[in-house]
Amino acid sequence: MKAAVLHAFDETLTAKEFVRYEEVTDPKIARPMDVIVRIGGAGVCRTDLHIVEGIWRSKVDVKLPYIMGHENAGWVEAVGPGVEGVKVGDSVICHPLVTSGHCLACRRGNDMHALDSSFPGINANGGYAQYLLTGQRALIKLPKSLTPKDVAPYTDAGLTAYRAAKKASRHLLPGEYAVVIGAGGLGHIGIQVLAALCAAEIIVVDRSADSLELARTCGAHHLVKAGESAVEAVLALTGGRGAEAVIDFVGEGDAIAKGLAMTANAGSYYIVGYGGKIDIPTIDMITTEKTIVGNLVGTYAELVELMALADRGLVNLHTREYRLSEANEALHDLHHGRIHGRAVLIP
Amino acid sequence: MKAAVLHAFDETLTAKEFVRYEEVTDPKIARPMDVIVRIGGAGVCRTDLHIVEGIWRSKVDVKLPYIMGHENAGWVEAVGPGVEGVKVGDSVICHPLVTSGHCLACRRGNDMHALDSSFPGINANGGYAQYLLTGQRALIKLPKSLTPKDVAPYTDAGLTAYRAAKKASRHLLPGEYAVVIGAGGLGHIGIQVLAALCAAEIIVVDRSADSLELARTCGAHHLVKAGESAVEAVLALTGGRGAEAVIDFVGEGDAIAKGLAMTANAGSYYIVGYGGKIDIPTIDMITTEKTIVGNLVGTYAELVELMALADRGLVNLHTREYRLSEANEALHDLHHGRIHGRAVLIP
Amino acid sequence: MKAAVLHAFDETLTAKEFVRYEEVTDPKIARPMDVIVRIGGAGVCRTDLHIVEGIWRSKVDVKLPYIMGHENAGWVEAVGPGVEGVKVGDSVICHPLVTSGHCLACRRGNDMHALDSSFPGINANGGYAQYLLTGQRALIKLPKSLTPKDVAPYTDAGLTAYRAAKKASRHLLPGEYAVVIGAGGLGHIGIQVLAALCAAEIIVVDRSADSLELARTCGAHHLVKAGESAVEAVLALTGGRGAEAVIDFVGEGDAIAKGLAMTANAGSYYIVGYGGKIDIPTIDMITTEKTIVGNLVGTYAELVELMALADRGLVNLHTREYRLSEANEALHDLHHGRIHGRAVLIP
Amino acid sequence: MKAAVLHAFDETLTAKEFVRYEEVTDPKIARPMDVIVRIGGAGVCRTDLHIVEGIWRSKVDVKLPYIMGHENAGWVEAVGPGVEGVKVGDSVICHPLVTSGHCLACRRGNDMHALDSSFPGINANGGYAQYLLTGQRALIKLPKSLTPKDVAPYTDAGLTAYRAAKKASRHLLPGEYAVVIGAGGLGHIGIQVLAALCAAEIIVVDRSADSLELARTCGAHHLVKAGESAVEAVLALTGGRGAEAVIDFVGEGDAIAKGLAMTANAGSYYIVGYGGKIDIPTIDMITTEKTIVGNLVGTYAELVELMALADRGLVNLHTREYRLSEANEALHDLHHGRIHGRAVLIP
Ligand SMILES: [Zn+2]
Ligand SMILES: [Zn+2]
Ligand SMILES: [Zn+2]
Ligand SMILES: [Zn+2]
Ligand SMILES: [Zn+2]
Ligand SMILES: [Zn+2]
Ligand SMILES: [Zn+2]
Ligand SMILES: [Zn+2]
Ligand SMILES: [Zn+2]
Ligand SMILES: [Zn+2]
Repeated sequence: MKAAVLHAFDETLTAKEFVRYEEVTDPKIARPMDVIVRIGGAGVCRTDLHIVEGIWRSKVDVKLPYIMGHENAGWVEAVGPGVEGVKVGDSVICHPLVTSGHCLACRRGNDMHALDSSFPGINANGGYAQYLLTGQRALIKLPKSLTPKDVAPYTDAGLTAYRAAKKASRHLLPGEYAVVIGAGGLGHIGIQVLAALCAAEIIVVDRSADSLELARTCGAHHLVKAGESAVEAVLALTGGRGAEAVIDFVGEGDAIAKGLAMTANAGSYYIVGYGGKIDIPTIDMITTEKTIVGNLVGTYAELVELMALADRGLVNLHTREYRLSEANEALHDLHHGRIHGRAVLIP
Repeated sequence: MKAAVLHAFDETLTAKEFVRYEEVTDPKIARPMDVIVRIGGAGVCRTDLHIVEGIWRSKVDVKLPYIMGHENAGWVEAVGPGVEGVKVGDSVICHPLVTSGHCLACRRGNDMHALDSSFPGINANGGYAQYLLTGQRALIKLPKSLTPKDVAPYTDAGLTAYRAAKKASRHLLPGEYAVVIGAGGLGHIGIQVLAALCAAEIIVVDRSADSLELARTCGAHHLVKAGESAVEAVLALTGGRGAEAVIDFVGEGDAIAKGLAMTANAGSYYIVGYGGKIDIPTIDMITTEKTIVGNLVGTYAELVELMALADRGLVNLHTREYRLSEANEALHDLHHGRIHGRAVLIP
Repeated sequence: MKAAVLHAFDETLTAKEFVRYEEVTDPKIARPMDVIVRIGGAGVCRTDLHIVEGIWRSKVDVKLPYIMGHENAGWVEAVGPGVEGVKVGDSVICHPLVTSGHCLACRRGNDMHALDSSFPGINANGGYAQYLLTGQRALIKLPKSLTPKDVAPYTDAGLTAYRAAKKASRHLLPGEYAVVIGAGGLGHIGIQVLAALCAAEIIVVDRSADSLELARTCGAHHLVKAGESAVEAVLALTGGRGAEAVIDFVGEGDAIAKGLAMTANAGSYYIVGYGGKIDIPTIDMITTEKTIVGNLVGTYAELVELMALADRGLVNLHTREYRLSEANEALHDLHHGRIHGRAVLIP
Repeated sequence: MKAAVLHAFDETLTAKEFVRYEEVTDPKIARPMDVIVRIGGAGVCRTDLHIVEGIWRSKVDVKLPYIMGHENAGWVEAVGPGVEGVKVGDSVICHPLVTSGHCLACRRGNDMHALDSSFPGINANGGYAQYLLTGQRALIKLPKSLTPKDVAPYTDAGLTAYRAAKKASRHLLPGEYAVVIGAGGLGHIGIQVLAALCAAEIIVVDRSADSLELARTCGAHHLVKAGESAVEAVLALTGGRGAEAVIDFVGEGDAIAKGLAMTANAGSYYIVGYGGKIDIPTIDMITTEKTIVGNLVGTYAELVELMALADRGLVNLHTREYRLSEANEALHDLHHGRIHGRAVLIP
């Protein structure tokens, strides 16, 4: 099959070609619950840039060359002998983790913390390709309203945004405020999820006027230009007390310190983006009683919930389509902030 | 009246006399809900050392000379014209914050986040004295089983430990683990509260053999000597995954990094002690999905709950009594780690 | 002042005059925190009909003649000497309970369960009058967007619906269903609150075509005619499993059994309306693991939340105005199902 | 193999022989995840009496003759070709439900509400036998401290009591009260779980002096003789307000009305036992804002939690052993209230 393969890290992200579009061996069914999915679309993620940079080498054991792409949807192409519930031809979206379902985390519904799992596109070959090897427990059948290439980025970008926004929505009350930092691929979904799940007023902070405009169409109530006066602007909008929830989809540079400063006493700062550091005196955590919440991608059940929102039109992904052979162009466009919404590779 | 008065900051904590025992003007009833309490005992707190050091100058507007002491209990000496519910002679414990009860935080039961409050001993004269000015809404009548001098440190040391341990107990399940870092004045109460409120196994980390022995009598199931191999020891006790809750009563030095390293994926690190910094890459928060929880002193209702535990003997304060005129000795003993439990000043 | 006074119970609700419009003594400030409100509007509630019927005699100690009206808003007319925070002329909405704020329920934010409170219009004179005696802790200042006569019914009809819908919204996930039984004065607000606070699909059951049409404009996604086949209709809409939340604003006749039958396994049936009986074998509760939730009016803080929704236009009360002298007409119109939304008396 | 087989219902429970001890065909592995367990012990449950009475005929499709026994533990005897994680010879306890793990309830950790499951002993052959057919997902390996015959009743009696007590422990605060109605096979475990998971004071109501004595050894703080004055006794113990949680392990006769009357305003009544009816006016649910909670057996993860408590000695089952051939004697002893704790059949 054709795939866009990563052969070398590039810490400065300056190479013209991050991946090489080439012919590779097809994946094969090896175990009873294996499923091969023909890719309809694969989302291009900032994590892919971080993988190219080599940031993930210390977290995950992966050997080059391998195929990135952890945001996948398509059609069932082949199933192992033990597979029930999906059949060849079904259109499906792929939860990023493939689990056996036996560990206590899975039994409690926290499959993202499974002890025994694979993560195609991170620690195994992913979906920058024509075909993907995954497993039955990762698959959700799509309703007729949804097409694989249009929903692929929900599996990680969407699902991570959903999980963080859902956590915030559990405590946000009418009259309270949520700040979203970064209205990009994840952020523009997070805004829509907040608008669907609670009645807090939503303030979006971004440095790009285009992203702020996208935020407005996604349901933001107040727009704030990122920069020196962003904290003051948020405090002014919130009666001086800050927002009860701040969801930081940037997670690097001054976003972190500013995000914490925008958080109200007794409020929560949700960290989703990464690359930077949290650096705060313990006395400031104590006197303000703030909470800092790390956020991983959501569970299988949460992807079902997100598909229910998408099916009803309550969230919409803004995607820009590239051919699989144009993977490098998509990665560079993302790196240089030229994508408002989410890039998808189509084989 | 007699009081132990702070006249000057001492950033190095090397002075022989931090406070001066002297005659000062008695406090007076000024407003309808004011209450004067004759002090039965006033707890000596690490926060008092931090006040002497001047750490709190940037957080709180306080002018010297003033009287420290925010952990108070005693007997009602005089009441304002609007006071109901307590009368002269009642033995009472004083919630550290005096609020009007009108702001939305108070209306929701979060009186520690009241917008309009005073905090005797922090931003007003406190209980290192014979008499204290407080307000009706701060007072809880003591059951007969409890004596002011024995319970005074519950108001802050106990109540802060209670709140953090209660938060942890809400998610700790049988088969899970709680780590307590620091078995001192707060920690030894936190251990007892955990043992009363949940069935997690309790691991206590401290560098002092005496404190570890105190921890054992408080209900700790496993004792770990603080130091280089403490993280490994906790991982070994928890099947390699760390503890679902870590409560850090130290909050400075290497306790913070080690505390975060002892926290299981999807677990929570509760920060109570202060003086140091939290410093962690955002990627580590994301991939582990940990939560960092700041902790302030508890609410009025939580002090009622803590008194119910004390009344039934489910928590016991280990106190060491000093005369009010010996305040400097108590402060130095605390500073040099010579107190296992909690010092109390008795006028 | 003028008031519409209840002089006698009428168990069959057949009298032409339930209340008599007449001159009565003005209320007076007696205690420091008392406030007199000049009524801008007083909601007419099904509870008022139940009071006339005498249903409440066994629950509440009230002596005739007295003035009904527990849903009040207006302008501050006079304040006691201890009142802060509101001043003469302020436009205010009145939380129905007047509390001292000292009991443990109040301290925990559950002021509706206050041990020491009065409930004007239920156990004291209410707002079917020109002036109302209430207390400072009951008052919320109105934003400029809201006028007393337009918001009065929020204090009970709105607030009770808000509380029940908020409880349901805490567990309703995308892809799940909420049934609202009865789209009247409370129900039409409950629908709007659900739509604002969660993304469940909302099914409304009512016997009146007009009420169903009102439900649609309030945000209902599916409309079901009450009657024999209503349970089957709900099961068909929910894939055979029933709704995860059923909010019953009727609470009498066959609504109760049908409401329980519409509730999914592991789901919750919220009972708000009253007059009938819950009658269910314990085995059915066990095998389905359903929960039955009683619902009282909401807290002061919840009324603040509801006003935030109203201020932003996320909930709208459908009111029909009557002069205070037309109170009997309003009560009869309500009794005979001629009001879609809520009647308000204007002095 | 030998088994005690049910051949006929007996609505009056007057027959001498409810089941017949006889030779039957051995169970066989049919599907990849099947497991055969050699029974070490099978708990005898009030539900078995209700099955004999025929109460369950309308709930569950079961054809006579069949083998009861849904509380099983033993040793793995044979495994299907797809089984991982357990091997022949392992000592195991059997969660009562056998699920595939694929439905959304399982994915969320609520396996007791699985759409596709079997329930050996209820709708399939159970453990009143030498061997039991179950599935991999139902099995938990026992720690060395625990022996199958001593833990078998945990699977249902223990797990149901655990789940109800755990739900209550999530909201019970120090200073609050829990009432346990019925200190029998389930109740005596429920008491121990409450004592382990929270610090509420525990009041036990039972009509048997022996059961009350067992309750005391299990951790009850107050004992109340069931009967006319039981409600008054509970109100007297709780300052007149009732208990914040009432767990009713009887669920028939006057226990239900009395249990609801013992429940404090804003409190919860947990119904576990069955046979009777809940019958309460909706107005009483509204004015008191009580909640009625149905309780099914717990999840797989909850059985893991309960085993952690048992392993640490925090709960202890009081069992009385019978040979499998004495099944009728055990059933009659249970029926006539002669068992304090739990009967276990040993093949
Ligand atoms: Zn991604
Ligand atoms: Zn797993
Ligand atoms: Zn202190
Ligand atoms: Zn306040
Ligand atoms: Zn010193
Ligand atoms: Zn009303
Ligand atoms: Zn109160
Ligand atoms: Zn059973
Ligand atoms: Zn299932
Ligand atoms: Zn018998």
